[in-house]
Amino acid sequence: MARIGIIGSAGRMGQAIAEAITAAGEELSGGIGRDGDLGALAAHSDVLIDFSSPTALEANLDAAVDAGIPIVVGTTGLEERHHWLIDAAAQHIPVLQTGNTSLGVTLLAHLVREAASKLGEDWDIEIVETHHRMKVDSPSGTALLLGDAAAKGREVSLSDTAVRGRDGITGKREAGTIGFAALRGGTVAGDHTVHFLGDNERLSFSHLAENRTIFAKGAVKAAQWLKDKHAGRYTMPEVLDL
Amino acid sequence: MARIGIIGSAGRMGQAIAEAITAAGEELSGGIGRDGDLGALAAHSDVLIDFSSPTALEANLDAAVDAGIPIVVGTTGLEERHHWLIDAAAQHIPVLQTGNTSLGVTLLAHLVREAASKLGEDWDIEIVETHHRMKVDSPSGTALLLGDAAAKGREVSLSDTAVRGRDGITGKREAGTIGFAALRGGTVAGDHTVHFLGDNERLSFSHLAENRTIFAKGAVKAAQWLKDKHAGRYTMPEVLDL
Amino acid sequence: MARIGIIGSAGRMGQAIAEAITAAGEELSGGIGRDGDLGALAAHSDVLIDFSSPTALEANLDAAVDAGIPIVVGTTGLEERHHWLIDAAAQHIPVLQTGNTSLGVTLLAHLVREAASKLGEDWDIEIVETHHRMKVDSPSGTALLLGDAAAKGREVSLSDTAVRGRDGITGKREAGTIGFAALRGGTVAGDHTVHFLGDNERLSFSHLAENRTIFAKGAVKAAQWLKDKHAGRYTMPEVLDL
Amino acid sequence: MARIGIIGSAGRMGQAIAEAITAAGEELSGGIGRDGDLGALAAHSDVLIDFSSPTALEANLDAAVDAGIPIVVGTTGLEERHHWLIDAAAQHIPVLQTGNTSLGVTLLAHLVREAASKLGEDWDIEIVETHHRMKVDSPSGTALLLGDAAAKGREVSLSDTAVRGRDGITGKREAGTIGFAALRGGTVAGDHTVHFLGDNERLSFSHLAENRTIFAKGAVKAAQWLKDKHAGRYTMPEVLDL
Repeated sequence: MARIGIIGSAGRMGQAIAEAITAAGEELSGGIGRDGDLGALAAHSDVLIDFSSPTALEANLDAAVDAGIPIVVGTTGLEERHHWLIDAAAQHIPVLQTGNTSLGVTLLAHLVREAASKLGEDWDIEIVETHHRMKVDSPSGTALLLGDAAAKGREVSLSDTAVRGRDGITGKREAGTIGFAALRGGTVAGDHTVHFLGDNERLSFSHLAENRTIFAKGAVKAAQWLKDKHAGRYTMPEVLDL
Repeated sequence: MARIGIIGSAGRMGQAIAEAITAAGEELSGGIGRDGDLGALAAHSDVLIDFSSPTALEANLDAAVDAGIPIVVGTTGLEERHHWLIDAAAQHIPVLQTGNTSLGVTLLAHLVREAASKLGEDWDIEIVETHHRMKVDSPSGTALLLGDAAAKGREVSLSDTAVRGRDGITGKREAGTIGFAALRGGTVAGDHTVHFLGDNERLSFSHLAENRTIFAKGAVKAAQWLKDKHAGRYTMPEVLDL
Repeated sequence: MARIGIIGSAGRMGQAIAEAITAAGEELSGGIGRDGDLGALAAHSDVLIDFSSPTALEANLDAAVDAGIPIVVGTTGLEERHHWLIDAAAQHIPVLQTGNTSLGVTLLAHLVREAASKLGEDWDIEIVETHHRMKVDSPSGTALLLGDAAAKGREVSLSDTAVRGRDGITGKREAGTIGFAALRGGTVAGDHTVHFLGDNERLSFSHLAENRTIFAKGAVKAAQWLKDKHAGRYTMPEVLDL
Repeated sequence: MARIGIIGSAGRMGQAIAEAITAAGEELSGGIGRDGDLGALAAHSDVLIDFSSPTALEANLDAAVDAGIPIVVGTTGLEERHHWLIDAAAQHIPVLQTGNTSLGVTLLAHLVREAASKLGEDWDIEIVETHHRMKVDSPSGTALLLGDAAAKGREVSLSDTAVRGRDGITGKREAGTIGFAALRGGTVAGDHTVHFLGDNERLSFSHLAENRTIFAKGAVKAAQWLKDKHAGRYTMPEVLDL
């Protein structure tokens, strides 16, 4: 049984992770919010899960390195310098960083990459997502993650090919672009569809999250998987053995 | 058997209408392109179908008025002054003008209006449409027609409430708005979905056009219906008795 | 503020209704299970909600009649004799009986009836639903409710026209039939889609329940609406003023 | 430029293949119906495409073997003995046999197999398809092909796990089964969706055929690919390099 500690335990996601730890048959070693005692938490844990904030990342990584234990980083909004910090920590401990801990989305991204690679630019790619009315940004991080998978399958850069918020007289669709559309409303936990639109036929790959528990469950599964790994930086596809 | 004449017979739509006239058991009295003899066509027809262009509208209406026969106007891209011309002609002959001649879309718009009226602003409205890669404008005229139906159901103006091409940090969704998203790719003839996203439940109403023949078929049905009407301006919902 | 009592409070649905009563700003007067004191509950309530079982229905209706208060009956699996009991009680008190208390499904059924009436038999009707892996019966009661709405729109009987569980060499589709298909798996709370499949175009009307709270919320809304009505038998469409 | 001959050229599919051959820049060497001169056709062709009938298969294979040219077999309704005939012919010439020549369906089946393998039995699999009102059998051959791909991914037999035409009191869903549902109506060329329904999340993979030209196009692509191969039996996934 692994002792799992939560950094960022006060929010909805933290609470969901606490429940997921118990449901998975593991031990919740503790959870801390903004001013908690990181060192004490790390000392009593076999692995940490961090869903706090980018500003806390450096201290969190330091605590994991000092304790010599793995850490799952699910914090979003990371910038380039945060990734350097993660790379540095991964010299000493196992670190898994991801923008989406859902197993379903992880597999979807893998298959989208493969489809994009096989189908080529004859099939236009369009990604549409729906989220609840409180979400403030568009497109979702997961939509961008799926777009990045599609771009990698085509061996192009997403930033060079993304078309976002199509509106007005835009002219014919440019070959090779990847379109994004965002719907907002109600209490939708998260729907994502990647369309491949070809000549007279279409392929569509969708993920629907019924609620947010799947992200907590995936984070715990990642922690279980990471516990016995060597130092290094890991990703969700490795958890699914993709 | 009605003798139906086509104005704008050279294009894809014109050809499809010619086939639909025969399929409906009516007589194709003739079809003319840009420089055809309007007067001769009108003289040999019981009703006209116009899918030409806004610039030709005035002459087309004049020919119908001179011949004293009804006219179905399916031309898109009309401006306010075109609607005045139609109103004027409708003093003398039956005129049916519409942005979409499909019976399915006509019924959909009717039901969307009713749903919007009954559900109120607690249910967020989002409209998403997909069209082939050659389409140059977004959102589609049909998406706007559906949005207008939703706005009428709520007794608001679409131009005051439409949110188009959502992208970036937009903040929480504003209550009462109607969102539009456009996907482009492949050879899609036209998919439209109107979502009503409520608390913990969703209603979605969709129309899918398998090909463009439905627009031709609907135009012919409108012509058949219009043939024996009194002078006045009519709409597609009346053809379906909505 | 209405005092609302729950008959059948022990199950998941009963608990959800208790929460929905509070959320709606009303007072939970109490809840009883199989052996509770019906008379005491009715004496302290302004309206009752019954989600118990068909076998308890007669006693529940008697308690409401004795107290002279309205009752919402959401119990499923009712037979003809239960409907006679309801009709008899409705001579004395307001009774609202329904197989689905969701406001979204109620509106959907209303629109499906209208669509079926307008489109006629040229558009084939197929109803498909998805529910979680624990559901033991197919098709769902809600799918049948939607099919009944479609049949009423066509002025036919559902039992004469329903085709269920299509499999094998069935021959061409018979005009006028209404098809049903059931998918089972995962934790799906309830998806329903009614397709109208025409020549070269399709209309699809869908409802998706994200979780079961909507049924509780709808039951409470029905109770609020029913509280001040005269004796008689009522239905969910009346609650939505359809 | 390859000279491609069609066996079974009289039907809709044969005509569509003839057009697809020209569109692909190849030469149509000829087409024969039931009583055509197979030997003459084979003598003037570099490769044959057979969309005739199972009863004609033996003669068709013999003609290809005699001429020493490859053959694509797209005929459906084959039985075990037909597969023996194909195996025998494949000792001498390249033979590609498939139940669906669409490139999109071929890729879909490949990805479904992979998803089924990675997700395991925690995710319930349900396959739903829609076809036009004239189709006489359910489920479609393509649905069974997709189900077979899913079963292979799980390393089970489809015949042991398939559940078809669910209806009535069926009890809880049995783990490891693969469900099939068939919708029929209108003029739908062919929609297929494979659902993976997990705990609180769902993955859905869909293919939509806008019309039947894709099957002709895929058959021609298969013929082009097969032309220069060694003797042996091949499948569609190899054409896509899957």
